[in-house]
Amino acid sequence: MSKNASLHYINYLQLDKILNAQSPESSSKGNEAHEEMLFIIIHQAYELWFKQIIHELNSIMQYFKQEKIDEENIGLIVGRVERSNKIMGVLVNQIEILETMTSLDFLDFRHYLSPASGFQSHQFRKIELMLGLKIEKRHQFGGCPYHAQFKGEEKNEILNLENTDSLFNLVEKWLERIPFLNMKDFDFTKKYEKVISNMLDQEVSIINSSNLSQENKNLRIHMLEENKKYFQRVLDEKEHNKAIEKGETELSYKATMSALLINLYRDEPILHLPYQLLRNLVDLDHKINSWRFRHVQMVEKMLGQKIGTGGSSGQGYLKETVDKHKVFTDLANIATLMISRSYLPKLPKKVKEKLGFNYKR
Amino acid sequence: MSKNASLHYINYLQLDKILNAQSPESSSKGNEAHEEMLFIIIHQAYELWFKQIIHELNSIMQYFKQEKIDEENIGLIVGRVERSNKIMGVLVNQIEILETMTSLDFLDFRHYLSPASGFQSHQFRKIELMLGLKIEKRHQFGGCPYHAQFKGEEKNEILNLENTDSLFNLVEKWLERIPFLNMKDFDFTKKYEKVISNMLDQEVSIINSSNLSQENKNLRIHMLEENKKYFQRVLDEKEHNKAIEKGETELSYKATMSALLINLYRDEPILHLPYQLLRNLVDLDHKINSWRFRHVQMVEKMLGQKIGTGGSSGQGYLKETVDKHKVFTDLANIATLMISRSYLPKLPKKVKEKLGFNYKR
Amino acid sequence: MSKNASLHYINYLQLDKILNAQSPESSSKGNEAHEEMLFIIIHQAYELWFKQIIHELNSIMQYFKQEKIDEENIGLIVGRVERSNKIMGVLVNQIEILETMTSLDFLDFRHYLSPASGFQSHQFRKIELMLGLKIEKRHQFGGCPYHAQFKGEEKNEILNLENTDSLFNLVEKWLERIPFLNMKDFDFTKKYEKVISNMLDQEVSIINSSNLSQENKNLRIHMLEENKKYFQRVLDEKEHNKAIEKGETELSYKATMSALLINLYRDEPILHLPYQLLRNLVDLDHKINSWRFRHVQMVEKMLGQKIGTGGSSGQGYLKETVDKHKVFTDLANIATLMISRSYLPKLPKKVKEKLGFNYKR
Amino acid sequence: MSKNASLHYINYLQLDKILNAQSPESSSKGNEAHEEMLFIIIHQAYELWFKQIIHELNSIMQYFKQEKIDEENIGLIVGRVERSNKIMGVLVNQIEILETMTSLDFLDFRHYLSPASGFQSHQFRKIELMLGLKIEKRHQFGGCPYHAQFKGEEKNEILNLENTDSLFNLVEKWLERIPFLNMKDFDFTKKYEKVISNMLDQEVSIINSSNLSQENKNLRIHMLEENKKYFQRVLDEKEHNKAIEKGETELSYKATMSALLINLYRDEPILHLPYQLLRNLVDLDHKINSWRFRHVQMVEKMLGQKIGTGGSSGQGYLKETVDKHKVFTDLANIATLMISRSYLPKLPKKVKEKLGFNYKR
Repeated sequence: MSKNASLHYINYLQLDKILNAQSPESSSKGNEAHEEMLFIIIHQAYELWFKQIIHELNSIMQYFKQEKIDEENIGLIVGRVERSNKIMGVLVNQIEILETMTSLDFLDFRHYLSPASGFQSHQFRKIELMLGLKIEKRHQFGGCPYHAQFKGEEKNEILNLENTDSLFNLVEKWLERIPFLNMKDFDFTKKYEKVISNMLDQEVSIINSSNLSQENKNLRIHMLEENKKYFQRVLDEKEHNKAIEKGETELSYKATMSALLINLYRDEPILHLPYQLLRNLVDLDHKINSWRFRHVQMVEKMLGQKIGTGGSSGQGYLKETVDKHKVFTDLANIATLMISRSYLPKLPKKVKEKLGFNYKR
Repeated sequence: MSKNASLHYINYLQLDKILNAQSPESSSKGNEAHEEMLFIIIHQAYELWFKQIIHELNSIMQYFKQEKIDEENIGLIVGRVERSNKIMGVLVNQIEILETMTSLDFLDFRHYLSPASGFQSHQFRKIELMLGLKIEKRHQFGGCPYHAQFKGEEKNEILNLENTDSLFNLVEKWLERIPFLNMKDFDFTKKYEKVISNMLDQEVSIINSSNLSQENKNLRIHMLEENKKYFQRVLDEKEHNKAIEKGETELSYKATMSALLINLYRDEPILHLPYQLLRNLVDLDHKINSWRFRHVQMVEKMLGQKIGTGGSSGQGYLKETVDKHKVFTDLANIATLMISRSYLPKLPKKVKEKLGFNYKR
Repeated sequence: MSKNASLHYINYLQLDKILNAQSPESSSKGNEAHEEMLFIIIHQAYELWFKQIIHELNSIMQYFKQEKIDEENIGLIVGRVERSNKIMGVLVNQIEILETMTSLDFLDFRHYLSPASGFQSHQFRKIELMLGLKIEKRHQFGGCPYHAQFKGEEKNEILNLENTDSLFNLVEKWLERIPFLNMKDFDFTKKYEKVISNMLDQEVSIINSSNLSQENKNLRIHMLEENKKYFQRVLDEKEHNKAIEKGETELSYKATMSALLINLYRDEPILHLPYQLLRNLVDLDHKINSWRFRHVQMVEKMLGQKIGTGGSSGQGYLKETVDKHKVFTDLANIATLMISRSYLPKLPKKVKEKLGFNYKR
Repeated sequence: MSKNASLHYINYLQLDKILNAQSPESSSKGNEAHEEMLFIIIHQAYELWFKQIIHELNSIMQYFKQEKIDEENIGLIVGRVERSNKIMGVLVNQIEILETMTSLDFLDFRHYLSPASGFQSHQFRKIELMLGLKIEKRHQFGGCPYHAQFKGEEKNEILNLENTDSLFNLVEKWLERIPFLNMKDFDFTKKYEKVISNMLDQEVSIINSSNLSQENKNLRIHMLEENKKYFQRVLDEKEHNKAIEKGETELSYKATMSALLINLYRDEPILHLPYQLLRNLVDLDHKINSWRFRHVQMVEKMLGQKIGTGGSSGQGYLKETVDKHKVFTDLANIATLMISRSYLPKLPKKVKEKLGFNYKR
């Protein structure tokens, strides 16, 4: 029990601040537009949730910044990414509420807002940066850098985040540190390489012995050859580094191999939570992207092809970000390298034991 | 364009208030519990949305308080109830976020909160009261009335709402005013009464001539007789008033008949939006109730059978409210009186025209 | 009561068919992959719901094919589009279920499926065609037309739909028939044109008299001039027709004007349900598009950059369709033409009466 | 690639069966009711998904039936319960689709259906039984046992499930087998008992030294004493067994203790997936219950207080099942026994190591 015997819900939640922070411009201009309240409140709800996501990301990144993450904390990290995902899920659904405000309703107060704009959400920019969406990956808008919107301490915070490790960087380093790629009796990359080569040969021979038309055979064999090239590029560290230079991929060779190993051997006890983590990170990327996508639809309903408050061409810019503002694509693309369990190299018994629990009954 | 050329998103949304209103007790006690932030933020998000729902209810009730609602505004009212429903839908889903906080997490800071409690949400009580959940309909908790939690202006506001028309009362009056029950050529109640009587007779004769077993026939005929009693009670104004006195129903006889007429003849242009409105009100009740239900589940996960902060027995009380704190049940129960379109009394041509649009091509 | 006294749930639902229609290829090959059942069942669930959407679209189109839609039926049509939207909403959420199947799980049976492919969903193609996604609007995939996948009766059905009115065409014709553009005392287009011109002039003068920097003023005035051009193009029937020829827009001039009028004067009783209808159609488009978008994400997780079953490059094709396979964009873009209520031309009293109900108290 | 080069989507999914299994009774009676199609299709979609849930439950139970569950498979089991939960989540949302069918629509064909009834879903009964809802836990309806609805093989299957281990039983046995309650240096129950006793004493002394009113102090101390009794009952095996006999609880003493240990020490690597599993099982119970709850609301909208097809009093019965048909309540109630991490007995280093991974860097 708290000694603070008088703690009341209203004080604890500081509702005097929260519930007195809505001052519709239309009201102060003496021409109240009923819907402006919704516009304010939904944006405030977004900002509250952004604060929570930043709270989660901060704690997650703190763990990753340690030289070694205590195994006890992996489950906790997984849970916090999952929570962020659930929040993003609610934020996606929340757009439906704003869509009950129509174009006609919005125009009743839109002119009061200019030049305020959703672009100016400092917290959302922070989230993007913390995840790893640094300036060189961003779709440029207008002539000036995205952080021109901010000043003083806020701008410094942004610039500072540009120059420190993002979650992407931290996860990459963690993957590079993982000690399973080359265990005494098991060189994963070599084993994998051999298996891929056998697999593709086998598929070619199945196609050749099938009753497909020659044309169809050629098509399929062509596809396999494309796959082969893809695998070769990935398995050759130099090729991989070239691809990084060209901007085709970003995750380092070693981190990529570790992520692949985790996905392939996810059932080994020590790899299961790391697998859940990688999966949750891809989901987070996808959920944020779904939010951008639904945002575009909402703007289309509200403004059609009109230009946004703050002078943004709204839809056009937003659309570009849907495709481009992704952070964990390389983790999603591990799927390209996955192979069927039937081809999976067996782990030697000793290796298997190492990846299991200490407890013996 | 606004003359206020310097309006910035951050100021417009008063984010200095919104984002500086989180002071975890555990942090101030020097023992930060990571999850307390979530606990604060989700409650604040709830309160923001409650404010929005109150904003909508206020505007809706304003229209209903007019002697005659302008037909132009019915669509608008329908839309605002629908918006409130979408908000409640998001609030239901939002519980999933809080459920990512487990019992173990909650216990890290729960003791700091006592005696603050969700019971103390002034806005939620206002919503209940505005809809029509007056004190005599409430499940009593502990020895003292629910508004003992509040003081000063807040208490006055609650007591004041107890004594003024709720949305339920206003909708009832509006239904009573609707002029369609007895139109020149069409006495709805009589027509409906006759049709019901024929329908039930016909169903009895179908059963008797069927190849069902005698036992089965008896069962079905018994059921029909029960239905008949129900209809008789409803159609007899005195019986209806007795049922009101006994607390079995609440909506007045005349309002009930109007609601039935609207549901049966919803396809007539003048009745379609009123029909949407009645439907949306039932949905609002159901959504609030779903929220209570999910709330019970969340508390079960978090506290099991523990006693709530603020000394509430938590679950037990909440469970009772799920069943009892309903406002628009009588509107839902109109469904009991519905009959198949094939039995529906035809509207005379003149009546039909009256319910249509003015425009003639 | 049914005379068919023996009707049992199992027979009524033909569960012998429904529940005996799952024959995993992996099982028949003696190598059961647990997840193949999910793959089959979710696709079957999709197809069931597609059948329901087709059922709704058929009934809606039937009404629109009548020379005049009875006012009684507009509410019903609105409801059926809304139902289709709720179905699509569930179909979007359903993707989450399939996403619990990972790449590794999928690869256990994927090779058995080739060349079967989701492209071969006949019903989904029908839905697209019924809505209005004719072949010339489609993103081409591979060398051959999309209907090369089908044969016999199924192909005929597709080709037939290519040549008959889609819902888009029918709605366009209905909008053209609507008699409100030029009512005795009210020529909508002229009134609107004048209002726009005044509005833009006024905005220019506000900017010029503001304390903005000259640069900022120039920017804003430039934006207004762009808007002006847009309005001029729209308001000039010849320009509009040129834009149609260039493929920039599709909806006829007259239909566009009617859709604008409905959106601007939606509060007039006779226009409210038509307004709900137009809104629901845009929503349907958006929901289908959200489904495509989430589909791309799911494929990314499952296959990365791998090539799809059936030889499709999967992701790439799907991504293109997200942007291009839209049908009701012109209805969404009406928002570009919307103006604030404060500029809205007042309807003369007689016109207003015509748009209201017949009933006089 | 499959040798079965001609596998087509339509054949693979057996769409000839799936899409030809809808024969509305109203159509065959020459009086088509548009909405009957929806009624059929949504029930079929439910049955498809029930089949999938049964598929998952079967595989999960298979693992639990083994003497020892391979650690590799725990992650997989967790994932399959989670998938079942996502399916149930979609089934809950799906009710919204059926709610677009109103009372008036339903009455157009309801009379054709009698006596078919949702009670007759064989698969749903199977799911309930597989989870552990045996006949003695069920809310009785009418005079006869719930399985009187079934005949022949279907009835046998039900009776057979009544007599074999449910998932509840299997999980209970697994919890009893878990070897962590009494490890060499660590007798969990004793440690926990002592901690509880200290904790309660401490809380009493905090209350006594607080500045609360005497009345308030008494109230709080009374609450703590109630908690104490609860803990004592739980910690005393004999008392626990008495509670089982009285039907107040069901999970065995040993299983309860193991579940508590797992929840308290969930961060230890070997306990994290078991913790996720217990949590997912409670969620499954809650999701099924949410479905029942929404089902009641849907029936209320559709029938009001009418009697259901098949002669069930519909709502009344369904309402009872919402509260009573729960299976994993004892796992949820573990929350009652949870204590703050600050009170948690420290694990000796050797014990901690045992619960960790084998791998040493």
